[in-house]
Amino acid sequence: MAGLTHQKLAVLGSTGSIGRQTLDVVRTFPDRLSVTALAAGRNLRLLIEQVGEFKPRFVFYQGDPSLLPSGDYEFMGLEEMAAHCEVDTVVAASSGASGLMPLLSAIKAGKTVALANKEALVTAGEMAVPLARKHGVRIRPVDSEHSAIWQCLEGEKSAPSRIILTASGGPFRGYSQRELSEVTAEQALRHPSWKMGRKVTIDSATLMNKGLEVIEAHWLFGLPFESIEVMVHPQSVIHSMVEFADGAVKAQLGAPDMRLPIQYALSYPERWSNEALPRLDFSKISRFDFEKPDYNRFPCLSLAIEAGKKGGTYPVALCAADEVAVELFLAGQVKFTDIAVLIEYVLAKHTSKSRPSIEDINTADSWAREAVKEAIRQERLHC
Amino acid sequence: MAGLTHQKLAVLGSTGSIGRQTLDVVRTFPDRLSVTALAAGRNLRLLIEQVGEFKPRFVFYQGDPSLLPSGDYEFMGLEEMAAHCEVDTVVAASSGASGLMPLLSAIKAGKTVALANKEALVTAGEMAVPLARKHGVRIRPVDSEHSAIWQCLEGEKSAPSRIILTASGGPFRGYSQRELSEVTAEQALRHPSWKMGRKVTIDSATLMNKGLEVIEAHWLFGLPFESIEVMVHPQSVIHSMVEFADGAVKAQLGAPDMRLPIQYALSYPERWSNEALPRLDFSKISRFDFEKPDYNRFPCLSLAIEAGKKGGTYPVALCAADEVAVELFLAGQVKFTDIAVLIEYVLAKHTSKSRPSIEDINTADSWAREAVKEAIRQERLHC
Repeated sequence: MAGLTHQKLAVLGSTGSIGRQTLDVVRTFPDRLSVTALAAGRNLRLLIEQVGEFKPRFVFYQGDPSLLPSGDYEFMGLEEMAAHCEVDTVVAASSGASGLMPLLSAIKAGKTVALANKEALVTAGEMAVPLARKHGVRIRPVDSEHSAIWQCLEGEKSAPSRIILTASGGPFRGYSQRELSEVTAEQALRHPSWKMGRKVTIDSATLMNKGLEVIEAHWLFGLPFESIEVMVHPQSVIHSMVEFADGAVKAQLGAPDMRLPIQYALSYPERWSNEALPRLDFSKISRFDFEKPDYNRFPCLSLAIEAGKKGGTYPVALCAADEVAVELFLAGQVKFTDIAVLIEYVLAKHTSKSRPSIEDINTADSWAREAVKEAIRQERLHC
Repeated sequence: MAGLTHQKLAVLGSTGSIGRQTLDVVRTFPDRLSVTALAAGRNLRLLIEQVGEFKPRFVFYQGDPSLLPSGDYEFMGLEEMAAHCEVDTVVAASSGASGLMPLLSAIKAGKTVALANKEALVTAGEMAVPLARKHGVRIRPVDSEHSAIWQCLEGEKSAPSRIILTASGGPFRGYSQRELSEVTAEQALRHPSWKMGRKVTIDSATLMNKGLEVIEAHWLFGLPFESIEVMVHPQSVIHSMVEFADGAVKAQLGAPDMRLPIQYALSYPERWSNEALPRLDFSKISRFDFEKPDYNRFPCLSLAIEAGKKGGTYPVALCAADEVAVELFLAGQVKFTDIAVLIEYVLAKHTSKSRPSIEDINTADSWAREAVKEAIRQERLHC
């Protein structure tokens, strides 16, 4: 039997939810995976622990590097790390806009990319997708929905006719407009199914997350927006579905554990036996429900899809406005329902640039962040 | 663009439900499919129509061939037809034990085989599967469940850890033991979801059909019986599921229309766009239910699985006893619940032969048929 292929990973965003679960997969497969580089933004304590355990050669820390104990590693910038010859696979799991440049750098260096950062493709899919094609890089999605679609497409010779992105519907699926306006940050952070970071948790509750996933699916799988359907499935067992030209639908199902799509992105095209991953017990799943999303009560979903369809820098403005609005909500500065109001306001004011460059993206990003703050300052919103 | 590959079909059992639907697919794809041979058992009127429409070169009719109008075709036996050099693909859709010899003949001739006849693999899987391997023939299942499993396995590099065969549960899923004993043939023939022949319809109602499918799955996909689980899913939208070593589950879903798995068996590895095939509308499917089958009220299911596990000629005796018992039930001679009683009685009396030859299979088949009739004659059963 041939020896196992060994992958050396750069884990960008190692102290976040996806980063931590990636390292958990590395722990399970020490013969197959090792960590060459770790990058983290804020959680110094955890980063120090991870450096001690995984002994990476390269480390990035967004704060003051002198706070890390000295050791047998070298400090390195994110872009350099993502392209380093000692790295085989880049797990792009940092959150928000900061994920874009390292992603482009990894693509240009021809690395295998396991992508958990949604914003990079949402804001710069028009740039990243052709670049990946040029460098022979197939971006492997880590999001459970996109991983499901990818798994369903494996081995298929024909393009799909439709993607059905499933959505849990969030914790406030049944709430009235009035109840939604009273949702607190504390309530919103108690998400029922998935272990996620704070930003993603709020995005899941507003359905913005699902809207970003629609845009991401558009770029990852090359389907027009009209062929991407969102369906609420509260049990979150079906992770997404794909329909083919003959009407056949394939679905991928699993327990809600992000280690499965993370592992698949690393094990592909194989699957590794992992007893630690939970199994579905269909005798305990008594039913699956489906319903159309309510675009009126959850306007972030349609705002995102519209921004995706319009293209240019609209998705950039969308992501940036959402990032700031969610931060304001978490800080108790605006209401849950104001998140959508702020984003809609910003998108309406935005002047988009088509085929945006990195500079255009950065400009639109800064503009949108400022526009949200400006709106708050002008007290255009009753908050 | 390269020209389309054209397949010349032999449709065995052309007047049955699967045969007729196969010809419907041929009608939709005249550039890709044509009919070289037609074989039918009893429905003379329909066979004459089909011969007129599809103009096959070879025809088989189980009755008196002189009843067919003369034409530009030749009469031919089933085995010769299945192996004829003018035939590319054999659609094995005849029912019952008669399907075995043509299947073996098609395999030996290296034909592509689209298999709808369950009994052939159930009774002779131990012989047919190694033979197919030897001749480089991959048997393409037409049964919706096995087609679903096959579709889910496409492109996967690793063997599955578990198969979850879904079952509608039949029209009497909620019936008590007493209500089951009073079921009439007329009631049983009103099957809710699928357009099927009479024998399969009764087998679906007793869950014998699901038991035979377990045995068929064992042979088609090489999994031990312990790794094949039956789950009742009354909506019949999920056609079956497969679990992998990492815990991921893949499912194939579709509207209940046999033309889809028939077409897939012919189009593989492609999928052909067919507007005539119904699409799933998830906004109309409000829910999917799951429950474990009730082995007490539906003993045919466990009788079949037990016979499959024991192997030898037990599955032959099972199929033969079932065929006769269902015939007796349809003729109003025995009760619905007597079908299982008769099969259990026959299996208990059966002396199995391991690694059976064709002769052993035929002997066991005749013995079991006689054993059912004998049981009836001796009035061991109160019917």
